[in-house]
Amino acid sequence: MEAETDAIRDHGGSLATARALFPHAPAPWIDLSTGINPHPYKLPPIPASAWERLPEDADIECLCEAAVRRYGAPSAAHLVAAPGTQALLPRVAAMVKPGRAAVWTPTYAEHARALVRAGHEVIEVSNIDALADADIAVLVNPNNPDGRLLSAEELCALARKLERREGMLVVDEAFMDVREADGWSVAGAVETHANLVVLRSFGKFYGLAGLRLGFAVASTRIVERLRSELGPWAVSGPAVAVGCVALGDDRWASATRARLAAAADRLDHLLGSHGLKVAGGTSLFRFVRTERSAEVFEACGRAGLYLRRFDVMPDALRFGLPPDDQAFARLERALAR
Amino acid sequence: MEAETDAIRDHGGSLATARALFPHAPAPWIDLSTGINPHPYKLPPIPASAWERLPEDADIECLCEAAVRRYGAPSAAHLVAAPGTQALLPRVAAMVKPGRAAVWTPTYAEHARALVRAGHEVIEVSNIDALADADIAVLVNPNNPDGRLLSAEELCALARKLERREGMLVVDEAFMDVREADGWSVAGAVETHANLVVLRSFGKFYGLAGLRLGFAVASTRIVERLRSELGPWAVSGPAVAVGCVALGDDRWASATRARLAAAADRLDHLLGSHGLKVAGGTSLFRFVRTERSAEVFEACGRAGLYLRRFDVMPDALRFGLPPDDQAFARLERALAR
Repeated sequence: MEAETDAIRDHGGSLATARALFPHAPAPWIDLSTGINPHPYKLPPIPASAWERLPEDADIECLCEAAVRRYGAPSAAHLVAAPGTQALLPRVAAMVKPGRAAVWTPTYAEHARALVRAGHEVIEVSNIDALADADIAVLVNPNNPDGRLLSAEELCALARKLERREGMLVVDEAFMDVREADGWSVAGAVETHANLVVLRSFGKFYGLAGLRLGFAVASTRIVERLRSELGPWAVSGPAVAVGCVALGDDRWASATRARLAAAADRLDHLLGSHGLKVAGGTSLFRFVRTERSAEVFEACGRAGLYLRRFDVMPDALRFGLPPDDQAFARLERALAR
Repeated sequence: MEAETDAIRDHGGSLATARALFPHAPAPWIDLSTGINPHPYKLPPIPASAWERLPEDADIECLCEAAVRRYGAPSAAHLVAAPGTQALLPRVAAMVKPGRAAVWTPTYAEHARALVRAGHEVIEVSNIDALADADIAVLVNPNNPDGRLLSAEELCALARKLERREGMLVVDEAFMDVREADGWSVAGAVETHANLVVLRSFGKFYGLAGLRLGFAVASTRIVERLRSELGPWAVSGPAVAVGCVALGDDRWASATRARLAAAADRLDHLLGSHGLKVAGGTSLFRFVRTERSAEVFEACGRAGLYLRRFDVMPDALRFGLPPDDQAFARLERALAR
């Protein structure tokens, strides 16, 4: 299991690591190290057949139609479901023959890893222009951890530039659900831009990361290839059943956006009142840069609150949303020390 | 969805296809077109965290330790979990550089498909010696659909022959659970044969195909590579939770082996009493060759019983196990007509 251990720790979300670092912290731990919604979608009834049988075409169609509406994809032929977007990264990276890959960093580390594995030379860049002369360019929008957000217009301009040199643009919209789609998501633009791949993650916004469900939205040619690469029955029956209901629930989505935004505001105020200025993020996580990062990480850890820190940015911390008043109070006490 | 439809139909298990073929059949359909245990493992309680959080290292370790014991793998470092063995086929096929692939046919069609996609020239062979001069040789043991069974000794001899020319041997033991492991599974032999990959399927024997869970047992080098290819969190939280309990339940496994063997015997007698001689199979499905195959398929279809037929073997039918007395009675009536 060694090979996986480091990667997982590096992503946050491992309470085993938290327990090892702070063995005397009060239980249960409050995990603020992820960007997963702490108020998950209530599981709908899952029929026995979803567990016992392989998903039927009609089930997958229900899931994909709901995803098409939810994400604003042009049609079901422009979308493919996968067991998490993580499973799509190596497949997408391998669709471009080994060349120059550019990743806008700092960002989710698995993109660079998948590109390297696919044989690309990976260059980490920090502005949009530097993405334009790559064979495959990858960015997360809104970005994790800093929340940097590009407009659909800017991204389409980048896609056009890349198109001229037959380059591919991958936009990971893992945290896009926290915004209304209009004007921000580029999922609708894959009909115009045949070199654009948009990734959407189910687990974060719906608070069901363990379900393993994600999507790629792209040209029909790319989607057909990804579908063939993934093979039949890539997504589990429970994920199909839950996704089909949850993605069709507009009321929950809009109430959740408001709820997350309010919780993020409350978190910003709490952090601000303790001298921690929020530099960015999305309403699923807040990004803080502070000279006191090590001290804050320690104080929170000793109080049983696990934050996300970053090897490459020692002065940065990411705070997930405290799930309830009690968690907000515990964070308040930890920061007041 | 077109691209997937044909492949899925070809595997059996699509009741939508059954309904389209026999619109006037009595509902509900009894699906005898798969090799999935109709008496599924009773779902254990699944903790909320399995749905909401990404699986932790400790959860994966629990799953893998149970699988190691169950399948007789040398150690957890020799085993990797995946969302179904289907997800492993393209990864395993791509571990050998494009060359000559030999598949012992007739068998599960996805093996040849994955090999072709990985750039191999695929040769279908019908004896063990013809497998020995391939760059990658694949067989299913016991085989689907005919139940042909090779001993571990024969397979180890084959692995040795392939080793001399740096060839890989893939043994798909998807239906091996119906036998006691001793002397038949080669999962324990991966320590001796670094070129051997054994695939194990969870969903068939445990009757939970929708869960999407499978394993590869192989040398630590191959396992590390597969793990890295699959990336973190390949298996869903519910699959980890269920697999961990089910794979550790020896009493259920041995009672189920006996129950399936009795049901297969009963099915053989029923088929035999209607002039259908069983030519092979495993206790999860029975394989029949008969000049009356089209007639039997039709009679069963009109009675709401969906059988598996094969494009390449027009005289063959595969019967899954009827789930209960009522289903046995319906099959009896259909065959008596």
